[in-house]
Amino acid sequence: MTQRDPPPTEEGWYALHDFRTIDWDAWREAPERRRQRALEEGTEYLQSHAALEDVDDPGEFGGGHTAVFTVVGHKADLMIVHLRQTVGHVEAAERRFERTELAAFTEQPTSYLSVTEASGYTERARDYFEGEVDDDSGLAQYIQQRLHPEIPDAEHVCFYPMSKRRQPEQNWYDLPFDERAEHMARHGDIGRGYGGKVNQMIASSVGFDDYEWGITLWADDPTDIKDLLNEMRFDPSSSKFADFGPFYFGKRFEPVELDAYLAG
Amino acid sequence: MTQRDPPPTEEGWYALHDFRTIDWDAWREAPERRRQRALEEGTEYLQSHAALEDVDDPGEFGGGHTAVFTVVGHKADLMIVHLRQTVGHVEAAERRFERTELAAFTEQPTSYLSVTEASGYTERARDYFEGEVDDDSGLAQYIQQRLHPEIPDAEHVCFYPMSKRRQPEQNWYDLPFDERAEHMARHGDIGRGYGGKVNQMIASSVGFDDYEWGITLWADDPTDIKDLLNEMRFDPSSSKFADFGPFYFGKRFEPVELDAYLAG
Amino acid sequence: MTQRDPPPTEEGWYALHDFRTIDWDAWREAPERRRQRALEEGTEYLQSHAALEDVDDPGEFGGGHTAVFTVVGHKADLMIVHLRQTVGHVEAAERRFERTELAAFTEQPTSYLSVTEASGYTERARDYFEGEVDDDSGLAQYIQQRLHPEIPDAEHVCFYPMSKRRQPEQNWYDLPFDERAEHMARHGDIGRGYGGKVNQMIASSVGFDDYEWGITLWADDPTDIKDLLNEMRFDPSSSKFADFGPFYFGKRFEPVELDAYLAG
Amino acid sequence: MTQRDPPPTEEGWYALHDFRTIDWDAWREAPERRRQRALEEGTEYLQSHAALEDVDDPGEFGGGHTAVFTVVGHKADLMIVHLRQTVGHVEAAERRFERTELAAFTEQPTSYLSVTEASGYTERARDYFEGEVDDDSGLAQYIQQRLHPEIPDAEHVCFYPMSKRRQPEQNWYDLPFDERAEHMARHGDIGRGYGGKVNQMIASSVGFDDYEWGITLWADDPTDIKDLLNEMRFDPSSSKFADFGPFYFGKRFEPVELDAYLAG
Amino acid sequence: MTQRDPPPTEEGWYALHDFRTIDWDAWREAPERRRQRALEEGTEYLQSHAALEDVDDPGEFGGGHTAVFTVVGHKADLMIVHLRQTVGHVEAAERRFERTELAAFTEQPTSYLSVTEASGYTERARDYFEGEVDDDSGLAQYIQQRLHPEIPDAEHVCFYPMSKRRQPEQNWYDLPFDERAEHMARHGDIGRGYGGKVNQMIASSVGFDDYEWGITLWADDPTDIKDLLNEMRFDPSSSKFADFGPFYFGKRFEPVELDAYLAG
Repeated sequence: MTQRDPPPTEEGWYALHDFRTIDWDAWREAPERRRQRALEEGTEYLQSHAALEDVDDPGEFGGGHTAVFTVVGHKADLMIVHLRQTVGHVEAAERRFERTELAAFTEQPTSYLSVTEASGYTERARDYFEGEVDDDSGLAQYIQQRLHPEIPDAEHVCFYPMSKRRQPEQNWYDLPFDERAEHMARHGDIGRGYGGKVNQMIASSVGFDDYEWGITLWADDPTDIKDLLNEMRFDPSSSKFADFGPFYFGKRFEPVELDAYLAG
Repeated sequence: MTQRDPPPTEEGWYALHDFRTIDWDAWREAPERRRQRALEEGTEYLQSHAALEDVDDPGEFGGGHTAVFTVVGHKADLMIVHLRQTVGHVEAAERRFERTELAAFTEQPTSYLSVTEASGYTERARDYFEGEVDDDSGLAQYIQQRLHPEIPDAEHVCFYPMSKRRQPEQNWYDLPFDERAEHMARHGDIGRGYGGKVNQMIASSVGFDDYEWGITLWADDPTDIKDLLNEMRFDPSSSKFADFGPFYFGKRFEPVELDAYLAG
Repeated sequence: MTQRDPPPTEEGWYALHDFRTIDWDAWREAPERRRQRALEEGTEYLQSHAALEDVDDPGEFGGGHTAVFTVVGHKADLMIVHLRQTVGHVEAAERRFERTELAAFTEQPTSYLSVTEASGYTERARDYFEGEVDDDSGLAQYIQQRLHPEIPDAEHVCFYPMSKRRQPEQNWYDLPFDERAEHMARHGDIGRGYGGKVNQMIASSVGFDDYEWGITLWADDPTDIKDLLNEMRFDPSSSKFADFGPFYFGKRFEPVELDAYLAG
Repeated sequence: MTQRDPPPTEEGWYALHDFRTIDWDAWREAPERRRQRALEEGTEYLQSHAALEDVDDPGEFGGGHTAVFTVVGHKADLMIVHLRQTVGHVEAAERRFERTELAAFTEQPTSYLSVTEASGYTERARDYFEGEVDDDSGLAQYIQQRLHPEIPDAEHVCFYPMSKRRQPEQNWYDLPFDERAEHMARHGDIGRGYGGKVNQMIASSVGFDDYEWGITLWADDPTDIKDLLNEMRFDPSSSKFADFGPFYFGKRFEPVELDAYLAG
Repeated sequence: MTQRDPPPTEEGWYALHDFRTIDWDAWREAPERRRQRALEEGTEYLQSHAALEDVDDPGEFGGGHTAVFTVVGHKADLMIVHLRQTVGHVEAAERRFERTELAAFTEQPTSYLSVTEASGYTERARDYFEGEVDDDSGLAQYIQQRLHPEIPDAEHVCFYPMSKRRQPEQNWYDLPFDERAEHMARHGDIGRGYGGKVNQMIASSVGFDDYEWGITLWADDPTDIKDLLNEMRFDPSSSKFADFGPFYFGKRFEPVELDAYLAG
């Protein structure tokens, strides 16, 4: 019973997926003046975080992103995604929301904390992790970009947490490194088949939250997300080793749309 | 460990099953004028969505459907089913409900987001998916009708989400395509045995919600639904591979009945 | 992988187990007049349903039953059991409760919808299901009585939902018919050993609720219920194939006792 | 597939573990007069039940016990344990609490209903169950004492529910009687090793609540409870066959301490 | 089926991880005077417990510690960790919080009770447990320090409960002692690889709470915690035998920061 080799990893931004439900009853009954103030403070909160006004030292990749999405169904109404360089930044952003009058009309039913992660399973990636590539090489830049992702303008978003199984016969963490690398390569190939249609952000939540990864997918056409996940489900790395948490699905949303959104 | 072939699929309408409980205490205590307004706005909401007034461009199949059902027991009181061409449409319909005074008397305990789906497991269906049949052939029209279903007038409704298992010895996603096709054929045969008695709508929720499919069944006689599901449970595609979520059972309901319904 | 034969079944009354908790704080603080009205309307509701005043066409077995039980512990305070000929009847009975002032002092933490069921596993029962026995034969009358059960006067009641397992090595739905019939026969023998001490009502909830059956047991001596269930648990049909939901235990309760009950 | 022999059993007192959380916010804000009344009625309730004033016919073992414990952490604040001769007695005690003003400051987050049980796995116990020992023999008296236990003065208490597994390879209910008897003997030996340090009450909840047994342990030194349970966990009867529910841990508490307790 | 030998263990301080959410709505709307009083009483509570003012007899290790942390996300806002010599001490500290006006602005969504534990799996440790080392030896002092840990000044904290599995093929409690000792040795080696970067406190919760251990990790760099846990997950003692509960992640927090924290 030998210990298996974990892959080398590198981390980028901390990600907080901050889910909020609207208390529509309170909103409906609130006097116009309070609603106006909630709208102003809410919009200002979203815009100032999108503009990274909370970031003093932006760094090479601009210091992060904040984007807002609606969520369909009862699980939430809004999903605010904060990407920042430290846990302190995302924690402050989460708390700062509570200062706004908008917060009085929301609950926080759930959330997810993770950090963007690249892992060195492929031979090329291992070169990077072993320091055998220049920082300004294409590979290094590709990995850095995945660690500091742009949030695309795509119309739809899907978020879900997941873990790898550790059961008898289905124990990801007991597979030899090479077998895992092969799985990851095939998994990556499927993803690349949706290039231009589906964007993804992969973030580790080991130690941070209840599953091992948080996955965020963006696409204009929702069925591209369905097709991608369905195809992956037939791949052994999912069919044998993946446990999925709840799925959240919604739409891209600009801070200025808050007014229209809350009008119903 | 090879990747299995997913079946080809085609999608139709997005489906939101929007469940609501009535706050009977608030309703009982509300002044007549507020109840009246809630009834008017609630009925108007249901009727205008049933009339697809929110759909600008109806398309060949009329752009969707909205139907309402009561739900027996504590899980919910009403189930509103919206079928529409985009996620944006069902999300707007969900949110628009919150504008009505009726919403003040309801909570949304749960919901389910999915998209109607046909999959190419049978040989005939594969012809369709490989583009070898005319659009106006019987097969093409049959598939299109399943993707854009009429909601039947049947008296009773049953909704439940489900997934296929991925356990050792019971791993649907690790079966060869032909074996899955055989399962689906036998499963379909059982369903056809209830033709004229039970109608079904099958919608994929991979990426959209917590299970992989949402199944809606309609029948005049509730025991036909029980018998169908029971017979299927003895079929290997269910007995070995199906995991079921919660079941919701209720009755067809016309918007104009809202008044009588809320009277208790 | 062949489909197994489901047993033939016949159904009787729909059963709604409607659980209610008392909001004791609200009750304690309510003015005497409101409590009086709640008591009157609550007692009237229970009595009129026990008297089947909601049933127009009683039929051979009288059209149903309604009985009330207390429930020990935090899960509920009262369990109202409605047996009726249609889903519409039990749904109306559930909703009609909300019209009473008593409802203002209760919540509905859970409920269970099912339909009484007899299945043809034994050779004798198969004769019945194959139509080879007269309607007025002893067997036919026995089966009809099980489908339209009297609710006995026994002092204690136990309710729980259950399903049969579909796991590798423990897959009820993958057993050959004869093996299941043998299990059912032995299971029935255990039950008969408690004849005169424990009464049972077995109702299918496939398609209606989250488990496959709802089981209601009545006995004067609670330990007879414990002994029966314990003995069954050592029988393979339970030890290998049964999954149990939550258990509810309480006492028979007459509508006229509501006053004393709510006094604490 | 033969049915296994259940052990003979005998039952003593019904046990209701009635958990309550204090609504500290309401308590803090209540006027002194209401707090005083809550304290008086709460103390009176606890004292009168400890004094068995609700028991008309005490019988040989005095008719029961009522004891109160604090519970550490969020799961509850108080655990009231009622032991009585009938379900009716514990149900009435539970309900009678709601009459007190103290109840207005509490919620009932959970509870557990069971009946003390002795089972005849050992050879000696089988003699008892086969009626081959005198009622006033040491064995008979020992068993009767376990069925009608004194609640010891020990400083700490631990309560948890548990069931025996019925999985492939770990199916307690499918073991031959002798194998189970051997397990129980070894399990008993471990318990006896903590004699004088840990007291236990074992009560069956088959048919009464969601697990099969409720276990209550008392000890002055909390680590004796930890050591006992840890040692048992390495015993096959636990390591292979036990499923544990939530654990509650707290301290013995006298009714007269209620005042000090609620002061914070 | 022989009983396995449990390791010898020794215990130190009882640990209560007391989680609190802030009711931001109530806080936002509270009059300045109430907020001021809540701040003063809250800060005083945290400071007096950090100063161990509740401890009469500090003993060799000073009688305990109290430290406060923020928690990111919806699960909690604050985690107060009390380490004390008795269960009575941590229970009193938990309850004393309810006396403060700050408590009126918080809920307690969860908590965890455990006791720091050292176990004698390594040969060296066995010497200690067999009493073959002097109390003032390095080993004895090392073990005593682990049982009475300093809470480090590190910026980040991670808490999670965990248990060892008892499944077929993955049954920790059925492994021979030597095999477990080997697992523990390798597990310890991984931990030591993060010496100077990650501090840990290991506490048993067998009998005290729902999992078997509560693990608290401290590090300045959050990715060191992630890397440590990830590396351990590839070690058989985790990959085959560990079941993890929810993870809580946050930041060190000084009582004087409460004012700034509550300002949002």
